[in-house]
Amino acid sequence: MGSSKARNSAFAVSRSLGMLGNDWTLLILREAMSETTRFSEFRSSLGITADVLSRRLNTLVEYGVMSRMPYREPGCRTRHEYTLTDAGRELEVVLCALEQWGDKFLPWTSEPSIERRARESNRLVHVAFIDDRGREVPWQEVATVRPDAYHQGIAGAAGRQ
Amino acid sequence: MGSSKARNSAFAVSRSLGMLGNDWTLLILREAMSETTRFSEFRSSLGITADVLSRRLNTLVEYGVMSRMPYREPGCRTRHEYTLTDAGRELEVVLCALEQWGDKFLPWTSEPSIERRARESNRLVHVAFIDDRGREVPWQEVATVRPDAYHQGIAGAAGRQ
Repeated sequence: MGSSKARNSAFAVSRSLGMLGNDWTLLILREAMSETTRFSEFRSSLGITADVLSRRLNTLVEYGVMSRMPYREPGCRTRHEYTLTDAGRELEVVLCALEQWGDKFLPWTSEPSIERRARESNRLVHVAFIDDRGREVPWQEVATVRPDAYHQGIAGAAGRQ
Repeated sequence: MGSSKARNSAFAVSRSLGMLGNDWTLLILREAMSETTRFSEFRSSLGITADVLSRRLNTLVEYGVMSRMPYREPGCRTRHEYTLTDAGRELEVVLCALEQWGDKFLPWTSEPSIERRARESNRLVHVAFIDDRGREVPWQEVATVRPDAYHQGIAGAAGRQ
């Protein structure tokens, strides 16, 4: 899925996947969520080549998910730091939903691949549907409503296959 | 991302995206969530070619997300019906998380592309973090814990780049 195609898609799902649909992109985002900011740190914790890392970081900056800031240490050339924008930080919900599903239905080991806890209470959290009164709604009880934009989107998608 | 690569990935996120990472796959899943079951119905509501639809449905069956059942109407040849498995139905949470994020950060129109409501109360629902007492936890307050499986996964991913 090319990024311009994904960006122009009427479907929020396609636009999101256009940006996320790459193994390394996801691993870089996870590192960034653990406060990694420097190119060399991403390289050493992921064991990724400089070329691949550089392309992926550029894509993330282009989509507004990460931002790039120059910094300079004494006696060194100018380098760049990469930090998540608010859009990037909110991807935590998406990553968790994908991980939960993958751990349950396409398991690799018996362990969950990652755990999330509320910082204050240290209680385990999961991703689920919740209504506007703050009550969890089981997925079995959720109905989908399609506004006009959905049908316009289908028409657009059919022109592209 | 090839499906075998994605399936073998230690990362739940990569495994999930390996299956989801295609525009049509997502649109087919959405149709299936609206009770579409027949090949001809998928074709006419999506405007998709028979060849593309057939390949995508096969992938979904292979991943255990949809199941295929033969049926036969009087005077017609045997055809197949496609229905979501439990694994497929639970993807609703993942699709909603992706859509919410896409609608907020990569908007296409001012309207949300889709709405979800609790069947019983008709209240709007969204996807969010929730703790084991059923309380919503803002994403800003969620911390990530990496079990051993995560680090084994990184080592595996580095060998694949």
